Amino acid sequence: MSRPLPKIVRATVTPILIGDPPLLNVLGVHQPYTPRAIVELETDAGATGIGETYGDSEYLEVANALAAALPGRPLTALNGLHDLAYQSAALTTDTGKEFDPAGLRGRRTNEKLVRSVVSAFEVASLDALGRTLDLPVHALLGGKIRDRVEYSGYLFYRWAEHPVPDAPTDDWGDALDPEGVVRQARRFADDYGFRSFKLKGGVFDPDQEIEAIKALAKAFPDHPLRLDPNGGWSVETSVRVAGELHGLLEYMEDPTTGIDGMAEVHRRTGALMATNMCVTTFAEIPEAFAKRAVQVVLSDHHYWGGLTATRELAAICRTHGVSLSMHSNTHLGISLAAMTHVASVVPNLEYACDSHRPWQTEDVITESHRFVDGALTVGDEPGLGVELDRDALAALHERWVRLGVRDRDDVAAMVKADPTWTQPALPRW
Amino acid sequence: MSRPLPKIVRATVTPILIGDPPLLNVLGVHQPYTPRAIVELETDAGATGIGETYGDSEYLEVANALAAALPGRPLTALNGLHDLAYQSAALTTDTGKEFDPAGLRGRRTNEKLVRSVVSAFEVASLDALGRTLDLPVHALLGGKIRDRVEYSGYLFYRWAEHPVPDAPTDDWGDALDPEGVVRQARRFADDYGFRSFKLKGGVFDPDQEIEAIKALAKAFPDHPLRLDPNGGWSVETSVRVAGELHGLLEYMEDPTTGIDGMAEVHRRTGALMATNMCVTTFAEIPEAFAKRAVQVVLSDHHYWGGLTATRELAAICRTHGVSLSMHSNTHLGISLAAMTHVASVVPNLEYACDSHRPWQTEDVITESHRFVDGALTVGDEPGLGVELDRDALAALHERWVRLGVRDRDDVAAMVKADPTWTQPALPRW
Ligand SMILES: [Mg+2]
Ligand SMILES: [Mg+2]
Repeated sequence: MSRPLPKIVRATVTPILIGDPPLLNVLGVHQPYTPRAIVELETDAGATGIGETYGDSEYLEVANALAAALPGRPLTALNGLHDLAYQSAALTTDTGKEFDPAGLRGRRTNEKLVRSVVSAFEVASLDALGRTLDLPVHALLGGKIRDRVEYSGYLFYRWAEHPVPDAPTDDWGDALDPEGVVRQARRFADDYGFRSFKLKGGVFDPDQEIEAIKALAKAFPDHPLRLDPNGGWSVETSVRVAGELHGLLEYMEDPTTGIDGMAEVHRRTGALMATNMCVTTFAEIPEAFAKRAVQVVLSDHHYWGGLTATRELAAICRTHGVSLSMHSNTHLGISLAAMTHVASVVPNLEYACDSHRPWQTEDVITESHRFVDGALTVGDEPGLGVELDRDALAALHERWVRLGVRDRDDVAAMVKADPTWTQPALPRW
Repeated sequence: MSRPLPKIVRATVTPILIGDPPLLNVLGVHQPYTPRAIVELETDAGATGIGETYGDSEYLEVANALAAALPGRPLTALNGLHDLAYQSAALTTDTGKEFDPAGLRGRRTNEKLVRSVVSAFEVASLDALGRTLDLPVHALLGGKIRDRVEYSGYLFYRWAEHPVPDAPTDDWGDALDPEGVVRQARRFADDYGFRSFKLKGGVFDPDQEIEAIKALAKAFPDHPLRLDPNGGWSVETSVRVAGELHGLLEYMEDPTTGIDGMAEVHRRTGALMATNMCVTTFAEIPEAFAKRAVQVVLSDHHYWGGLTATRELAAICRTHGVSLSMHSNTHLGISLAAMTHVASVVPNLEYACDSHRPWQTEDVITESHRFVDGALTVGDEPGLGVELDRDALAALHERWVRLGVRDRDDVAAMVKADPTWTQPALPRW
């Protein structure tokens, strides 16, 4: 005889705002505060699990609908979450808008919205299941095949301070030229031991960004480097940059937008194209892979629908000889723990993963991760191995209630500093 | 603090021989007895798990090597089994032989050999883990999304008896013409309620097999039908059969061999090509899918490396708009339970799965599955939900020791009846 499967008795979604530095990108600048959504599940066995995803309004709406539908369902019923999210949020599978200006997340579809929401519930379920069973999440995914996961140092052009009052501050100062970028990288290397560096480009004229990469290459001659202008360049500009930086980049990240453009840059330069914009859904894979538009998919377990979906993406990439690494948007320690667990089980992880994490000083877990030698170790504690800090969660939620920021909007944040700013058409250069 | 992960303390592989009727195919006829290998794992928590795979000599050799390497490893370390099998069996990743005459399993490579062996250990691990955690295997795979899995009735041309002494017998009689095939189907429908029927072809001249399908279509007008000559036909013959059977088959299974041939038959006829020969490894997918050689992959969790690998295959198929169903070779109840669990979690299972099972009257589990309304229900008992019958296992192993049959060889079995028989070159027609 079998006992009944453990069931979910409570599912809550808490929107929060977390502080973000004035990091620049092709669309504008990060707002002082960005929304995230924290998911908590409780089971009839008394176990709890936590997950994290985007907190913008449309994500919250779907998350709340899904949360309301969960009580009474088996904790292990992960495969059904996708369809349940569509049903409970009354969404259709239409393709929606074509480009997401909120955070440069590639194509914007209901499918990606649903998957981004489901990811947090899947992670929370795995966390709760791991705690129930006394198993780490990686063991629920077939077991880690590496004990440490390497991350890259994520360099940004940035201002010293947000151009608005009452914004969070830090002691990083600005980085607006090659010297500033190298200074930032030096601190990242000293503090966290990162070996790879990624520079978020698309901010200045490509020649200035080329100089920044050359300065990094000189200062860190044996460190893999990457440059990501978020599709800010035309094919011609991309080809020119690839030539100027030949031998200095391990890959080019989204130099231009669109499958055909990426494929052309690869064909003409031989440079490897990495992406978290050109291919962000399963639907985009057949054409993109057939045209050899991307050589490295930067997976994001939020976009792709969770940890199992990330493994499925990894299998697809492996089958087609496409490499895999991981993308990151502004996130907290729950998502970093989830990334680290899934990164530990995927055989074909060939590059250091991205993480914005060092830029966020706030967290909702009791002990934030600390990168050592540019990596995180994969623990064997039950579930994700992190503990929710309820006081911190309450404070960040209170901020969400008080400040009223509901969506990430890098364009609007830039307008605060430059009233003439409008959303740039891509390519900018 | 975390408890140590449950560990494997014992892994055993028991070769057995199971009775098989004189079922005919393009290569010859099933032998009276066919080898299988039964895997048992025992953990330090006292749980046990069972798995099943091919028992031919080369499989046994790898299985024994892997079993010897397992004690001391975490039960959850499934992702590492693949590499461990290569290491412990001292295999290289060369491509091996191109075609496997033992059972029409498609391309024969070390990779497929390793995956076929790993599958039994992965299933046994999931069974033991489920028993440890009081969870069904489907819950360890993210939860069933269907409560019943449909199977098809697997029709064979056959003799009434094996042409050798001391062979197993049954009361099915022969089936060597359309009437015999319809009679067999009728009994399958009456006894098990199968709705779909698959006829193993490649035995007689295609015109005779066309007549058999037409007779089935007439006797069972609303039942989906399939015909599988195991690559026995040329492209021209396949095109002709497709024309003759237009509208009567839900798909054609491996009418001809090779990616280019299958693609041409599909292109010229529009008939859907299903396969468990043309695409049986991940390495074959990119070319086959690019050339539209197959529209239905008949997954076999043994070939593909286990239940998680089957889910990965399903994700690849889903992404590329290719359908999925399941293949079966002669197997026992352990593999049928494993098939049913994984079939219950895969969203894109669009056809009734194959199973040889009704042809085998022997089993190594205490309560063999029984198809009802052509389907099996997906249970919530811990692990696979089946119990090893140690007496039956011992008896079938004793037969393996006594009879000395070590490999499946349909050609050799046919030679017993027809000394002039040699392995047919494909295509035969
Ligand atoms: Mg990017
Ligand atoms: Mg077949």
